[in-house]
Amino acid sequence: MAEAIKLFQYNTLGALMAGLYGGSLTIGELLEHGDLGIGTLDSIDGELIILDGKAYQAKGSDGKPEVVEVSNDVKVPYAAVVPHQAEVIFRQRFEMSDKELEERIESYYDGVNLFRSIKIKGSFKNMHVRMIPRSAPDTKFADVATRQPEYTMENVSGTIVGIWTPEMFHGVSVAGYHLHFISDDHTFGGHVMDFIIEEGLVEVGPVDQLDQRFPVQDRQYLFAKFNVDEMREDITKSE
Amino acid sequence: MAEAIKLFQYNTLGALMAGLYGGSLTIGELLEHGDLGIGTLDSIDGELIILDGKAYQAKGSDGKPEVVEVSNDVKVPYAAVVPHQAEVIFRQRFEMSDKELEERIESYYDGVNLFRSIKIKGSFKNMHVRMIPRSAPDTKFADVATRQPEYTMENVSGTIVGIWTPEMFHGVSVAGYHLHFISDDHTFGGHVMDFIIEEGLVEVGPVDQLDQRFPVQDRQYLFAKFNVDEMREDITKSE
Repeated sequence: MAEAIKLFQYNTLGALMAGLYGGSLTIGELLEHGDLGIGTLDSIDGELIILDGKAYQAKGSDGKPEVVEVSNDVKVPYAAVVPHQAEVIFRQRFEMSDKELEERIESYYDGVNLFRSIKIKGSFKNMHVRMIPRSAPDTKFADVATRQPEYTMENVSGTIVGIWTPEMFHGVSVAGYHLHFISDDHTFGGHVMDFIIEEGLVEVGPVDQLDQRFPVQDRQYLFAKFNVDEMREDITKSE
Repeated sequence: MAEAIKLFQYNTLGALMAGLYGGSLTIGELLEHGDLGIGTLDSIDGELIILDGKAYQAKGSDGKPEVVEVSNDVKVPYAAVVPHQAEVIFRQRFEMSDKELEERIESYYDGVNLFRSIKIKGSFKNMHVRMIPRSAPDTKFADVATRQPEYTMENVSGTIVGIWTPEMFHGVSVAGYHLHFISDDHTFGGHVMDFIIEEGLVEVGPVDQLDQRFPVQDRQYLFAKFNVDEMREDITKSE
């Protein structure tokens, strides 16, 4: 039997959206656990994209989208990575909306009760992304959410990376797809809102286990008061 | 730094209560991951108690409570175990209800956002437990729940073992305490409903990580349709 594939999740999306924006795990430590994934940076400073074992930050600075490589010492408050191994691979040969492509991807699943890794390398007629703006720890996520820069790029080649989460883990993560994008030339990327794919190669990877970590030495996390129902609704609304 | 303590959870309480009663992990495999814990047996045949690295089954057969040791080849549909290491230890010197003792235990927590292991060895003025009755896989949990045998034992010495779960993981597990009991003479035990402790030694152990496993080769699990909101409510009602 092949080695079990673990989804490594640091902290929870719920805790992040409850305002715990301070980074406490380094990119270097994160990359030991996977080569594909998503997350955000310290002070929710943009979108984290892990592709082929390298970390990139997509942010909207001065009204322009920007992508930079992230060094190993930068800290993250939330991230999820997996040692991606394609188990289902198919070529998408004709134009589809994100919703149509997602349905096609799900048609290859053996049920919806396991996590999965997703990688889609292709040409996109358009790609609509957003980047979370760097925010002070006491800023409410609902306020942050209203002022997230959004960009649409037309005719862009690049890769979507991300995680599929079973509904039971909504709150811990976001149920369904959580996808980030980075262009091939590393100048454009972010949290995927919607897209039209022209053609591409879609990979779905298995996840056998969830390796859930907590910021066990972060006083803010330990003593945070979470309203979990509200948290789940917030994630549904904003993700 | 000491080695991280992992809570090993096999399957989810939500999936169990959605009717997936078939065992798919052996007790032998389970015990490799912890020496203290809780769960149930194949066909939800009673309550599983893991104490000091040994597995016991508490069941209500023919109207009598019974406890038997479980062999390594028996399979479980759901269980959670941890290599328990006491981090907070206190002696409870006077009589308290379960609610009072739970409040006292929580007063020693550094926040409520981490899992914890719980072990309470003591004398109990009374101990009220229930045992889930062996059921066919197509039996609805709501129906099973209405016919769970309950027993109260007076003046009994024994040990409570279990897990504290942060609210964010409700559904995956049950938020708050999930406790099972076994008497010192191994003749009485079950899922703890309520109790009055006379005196005892209380141990709380840290959990740094959640090692969440799934029955990845169980077709029933893979293709089950879960109503997650209903599932969370059911757990709240019945646990």
